[in-house]
Amino acid sequence: MQKILENALEIGRKYIPEGECASYIPELAKADKNHLGVCIRTRGMETFSAGDTKERFTIQSISKVITLMVALQHCGFNKVFEKMNMEPSGDAFNSLVKLDLTSDKPFNPMINAGAITTAGYLVPDVSFEDMLNYARRLCLDKDIVMDEKVFRSEMDHCARNRAIAYLLQSKGILESDVEKSLELYTRMCSLSVTAESLAGLGLVLSNGGRHPETGERLIDKYAVQVAKTIMLTCGMYDGSGEFAVRVGIPSKSGVGGGILAVVEKRMGIGIYGPALNEKGNSIGGSHVLEYLSKELNLHMFAAEQ
Amino acid sequence: MQKILENALEIGRKYIPEGECASYIPELAKADKNHLGVCIRTRGMETFSAGDTKERFTIQSISKVITLMVALQHCGFNKVFEKMNMEPSGDAFNSLVKLDLTSDKPFNPMINAGAITTAGYLVPDVSFEDMLNYARRLCLDKDIVMDEKVFRSEMDHCARNRAIAYLLQSKGILESDVEKSLELYTRMCSLSVTAESLAGLGLVLSNGGRHPETGERLIDKYAVQVAKTIMLTCGMYDGSGEFAVRVGIPSKSGVGGGILAVVEKRMGIGIYGPALNEKGNSIGGSHVLEYLSKELNLHMFAAEQ
Amino acid sequence: MQKILENALEIGRKYIPEGECASYIPELAKADKNHLGVCIRTRGMETFSAGDTKERFTIQSISKVITLMVALQHCGFNKVFEKMNMEPSGDAFNSLVKLDLTSDKPFNPMINAGAITTAGYLVPDVSFEDMLNYARRLCLDKDIVMDEKVFRSEMDHCARNRAIAYLLQSKGILESDVEKSLELYTRMCSLSVTAESLAGLGLVLSNGGRHPETGERLIDKYAVQVAKTIMLTCGMYDGSGEFAVRVGIPSKSGVGGGILAVVEKRMGIGIYGPALNEKGNSIGGSHVLEYLSKELNLHMFAAEQ
Amino acid sequence: MQKILENALEIGRKYIPEGECASYIPELAKADKNHLGVCIRTRGMETFSAGDTKERFTIQSISKVITLMVALQHCGFNKVFEKMNMEPSGDAFNSLVKLDLTSDKPFNPMINAGAITTAGYLVPDVSFEDMLNYARRLCLDKDIVMDEKVFRSEMDHCARNRAIAYLLQSKGILESDVEKSLELYTRMCSLSVTAESLAGLGLVLSNGGRHPETGERLIDKYAVQVAKTIMLTCGMYDGSGEFAVRVGIPSKSGVGGGILAVVEKRMGIGIYGPALNEKGNSIGGSHVLEYLSKELNLHMFAAEQ
Repeated sequence: MQKILENALEIGRKYIPEGECASYIPELAKADKNHLGVCIRTRGMETFSAGDTKERFTIQSISKVITLMVALQHCGFNKVFEKMNMEPSGDAFNSLVKLDLTSDKPFNPMINAGAITTAGYLVPDVSFEDMLNYARRLCLDKDIVMDEKVFRSEMDHCARNRAIAYLLQSKGILESDVEKSLELYTRMCSLSVTAESLAGLGLVLSNGGRHPETGERLIDKYAVQVAKTIMLTCGMYDGSGEFAVRVGIPSKSGVGGGILAVVEKRMGIGIYGPALNEKGNSIGGSHVLEYLSKELNLHMFAAEQ
Repeated sequence: MQKILENALEIGRKYIPEGECASYIPELAKADKNHLGVCIRTRGMETFSAGDTKERFTIQSISKVITLMVALQHCGFNKVFEKMNMEPSGDAFNSLVKLDLTSDKPFNPMINAGAITTAGYLVPDVSFEDMLNYARRLCLDKDIVMDEKVFRSEMDHCARNRAIAYLLQSKGILESDVEKSLELYTRMCSLSVTAESLAGLGLVLSNGGRHPETGERLIDKYAVQVAKTIMLTCGMYDGSGEFAVRVGIPSKSGVGGGILAVVEKRMGIGIYGPALNEKGNSIGGSHVLEYLSKELNLHMFAAEQ
Repeated sequence: MQKILENALEIGRKYIPEGECASYIPELAKADKNHLGVCIRTRGMETFSAGDTKERFTIQSISKVITLMVALQHCGFNKVFEKMNMEPSGDAFNSLVKLDLTSDKPFNPMINAGAITTAGYLVPDVSFEDMLNYARRLCLDKDIVMDEKVFRSEMDHCARNRAIAYLLQSKGILESDVEKSLELYTRMCSLSVTAESLAGLGLVLSNGGRHPETGERLIDKYAVQVAKTIMLTCGMYDGSGEFAVRVGIPSKSGVGGGILAVVEKRMGIGIYGPALNEKGNSIGGSHVLEYLSKELNLHMFAAEQ
Repeated sequence: MQKILENALEIGRKYIPEGECASYIPELAKADKNHLGVCIRTRGMETFSAGDTKERFTIQSISKVITLMVALQHCGFNKVFEKMNMEPSGDAFNSLVKLDLTSDKPFNPMINAGAITTAGYLVPDVSFEDMLNYARRLCLDKDIVMDEKVFRSEMDHCARNRAIAYLLQSKGILESDVEKSLELYTRMCSLSVTAESLAGLGLVLSNGGRHPETGERLIDKYAVQVAKTIMLTCGMYDGSGEFAVRVGIPSKSGVGGGILAVVEKRMGIGIYGPALNEKGNSIGGSHVLEYLSKELNLHMFAAEQ
């Protein structure tokens, strides 16, 4: 297994020169684009790591998975999807177009409009401290904190998300305080994780929401089922469809360079690689996952060998 | 002439039942939809009125014409149109779609995105008091004040415009303070005018920006030329093209029920009729203008008799 | 199992009054909207049927799955996806919008633009007779024929598909003869199947493309893997995302009222129910599948019991 | 006047290097991009020419003006605009987007969708020979013929227009024979004119549709009024708004390099300059017209001197 991970990294690294770190906020642009790491945590409680798996980076959009699950547990499926759909949008991740054309609901909870809506469901009942605790437990990583610098940088450059949030308010979708919802959303994006944390989160999700050792229920099992499905159809921005075909593992990427991947009933995989492709997904990480999927037969519809 | 105005009103009134007052803010919904008035002020300094021409109502989008002209005078043509186009959008007046798809500039200064951008050019140099004085002088009506109730009501329901403003900021188009630009824009929309004030404004514009009696220059003549042209192509929301064909007079409507019409070198026409058609234009007023255009041969391309 | 199927039908039938048969071609409008049938064929070679499972109807869009697999086998993955993506479109099934906005490629092979492109890959090498034979073998139903009346009716009302096909030609995507590609596409849509045929097709796909009894390879296994993934993300028109969440089984619907569902490594399910919901999917059939998914724990991410 | 024309050409020529000849059909790409000519014909029956005003080129989209006027005369205003609007689209000239999003009507008769619809109103009553005669009389140029080579080349590369035409049929907008309507439309685009012919057409339009010498009515006067208005709002593709502001003369351009301009009650102007700007308008010609408008005070809202 270790050898396979090393090979995967080697292949992934070849694509790094074609990618770029996110640059829309100055803090993200400071990442070292050559970093690449992959961590696998299995239901047999083995951990395999290669590359930069201890490096901390901000979770960014991967936090949408956590926020969605907590909202599902807190408010229930019907409430969460009363004013939001669960359809892939076919558009870039920060587009306003679809929201406006259809003039009713955000397409899904993985796009910014949907994630801000989801954050609004939690305001004011669930505090950021509550959410931080959820993140620590679900990622099996008690060291997660919020990266204050990234958070400040994001808040200083959030005009587009603020526009989305006020548009949601104008449509009666976001009923909580706009600025508080936006802040909670942005704080969650600024959580500082490692590839290992994401592998931990993936392992918990592959295990239906239970702690892999203790069996303790960490999050509602139906919330996990819904989250995994939406990761599959909407998790990799507007490259989700092709990723499902090529890799076939429910995954969620963030512009910080992370990818969370959940191999049903088998393992969690966490990736860090801040050089992004044109869809906003870690370019090295995507190739690592494609390689692992083939080598380890992880595609959900892989033919029997 | 008086008889023609009376006939025009009679025809316009027939369409009132098909229209509705604007309802997106509570204060506007309180208007009496049966009001209808038309005032003509000629370059010969005659004034003809019929119907509710002394009734005060808020100027709403017609203020975009004033703001545009002041911005052109204040900043110059190149600055105003550096980050804004002058093309009809083909979309409804408060749409975000076009701004996002083309991802660069507001389509024109008559849509909300463009008017907020234009207001931003004036902040902080030109105060609202300055603008109020411009409005009073250009409309030949020193009694114009801001309707405080409408202004408050608008600010309480401006989430969509706020979304537009932050989107403009995120694109680097709106560089002034967002909240101050939005406030100036909204204050201008809340000016309280009459059909007579609008006829006065129309007269000044038909006269190239000079006071019709004193000959004093009230606003830059090129600003007037530009404003009249943009009124013609973009002044009646997404009904501008058909209005140009049927009426052929540069006009600008507001959801408060007003219409400003400028008959080149001949007269200004002001209308008040708060029942709106589905495009957001005074339904009675549009028919009044169509009738007047035919009876008085006002179409810019009317064949010689 | 039989009892569960009966219950499923009972639930599905309750929704029929809310649905309507497709009416865009006269022949489809003649269907009896009260028909509803479900057939399950398992890898243990058991067949369970309830309701109208022997009724013949046209396969319509479900044929896109067959065409895609044959094209993948015939031309290879790279050729098929050289000028076509594999992303959900977020739009209605017969929309031209996306194709035009992005100005390059059809979104995926399950929308009309993509399926016509796919048909074009087969013209002129693969004849309709070849395709008919594929359909018969893959559906384990040698009685499949083309419904001549539906085919004629479709050809008489295919202006929109013809528009799509010429648009594809104008973009250099469809390089084969336009009319021949359109005809092959339309012939495939007119294949006359039963719920049982679709269960057969589902069984073969759940078995990775091999005949469930003889083990004979009927279609390339990678083509099957790709087809199942795309069914999951794009198979139920713009309701695919919600269907994946609620049902969690790769499925493909047709406006003739059929649904093909593939439960990985376990069974194929075929549905017939011509009353459609507003997305174009069998309304009774969708509810039948949702019920079966829950009762039989068929969701791909169902928590362990 | 002659001096002014020479100066105008000199200015226009400076921009030619920034433009490109239309290349979507091979025949158009063969034009000499350095050609530039301007012809003015006044109501006083004077003709002023400078540059390449005898050069023949295909009229292309300028024919839409002729077709619209004949359709208005033949079918009446209400019929022509029953299934077509008169609004600027805000989109590029050959876009399908708007037609599909709004899902009802072409935006105006100056875009391809609208012009094909208009041609359909004439089929089969008005033959191409009839239309050719209209063109000859309206342009005061009896030598106009169809350029057979361009026509063949266009028909060989008309997949996009064919797509538009079938889309129009699928929406019930184009009720005449699709191929015949498309052919009539394409034949009209292939008429071979000169800058002088266009100046003649402009003169007739500036004269309300009467022959400038004999006073004979050549086309209905209301048709002329409508055509001039639509030229003003929609005549220069998606640069129409800016052109109206900068030039202020109802004009129509074609990708063959021609521009028709109508100075109300004063003159017709014809331009030839096949190097196009990014909007599809003659780049030299646009600058020639802007210069002439300023020098000769031709802007419809030009301030009194």
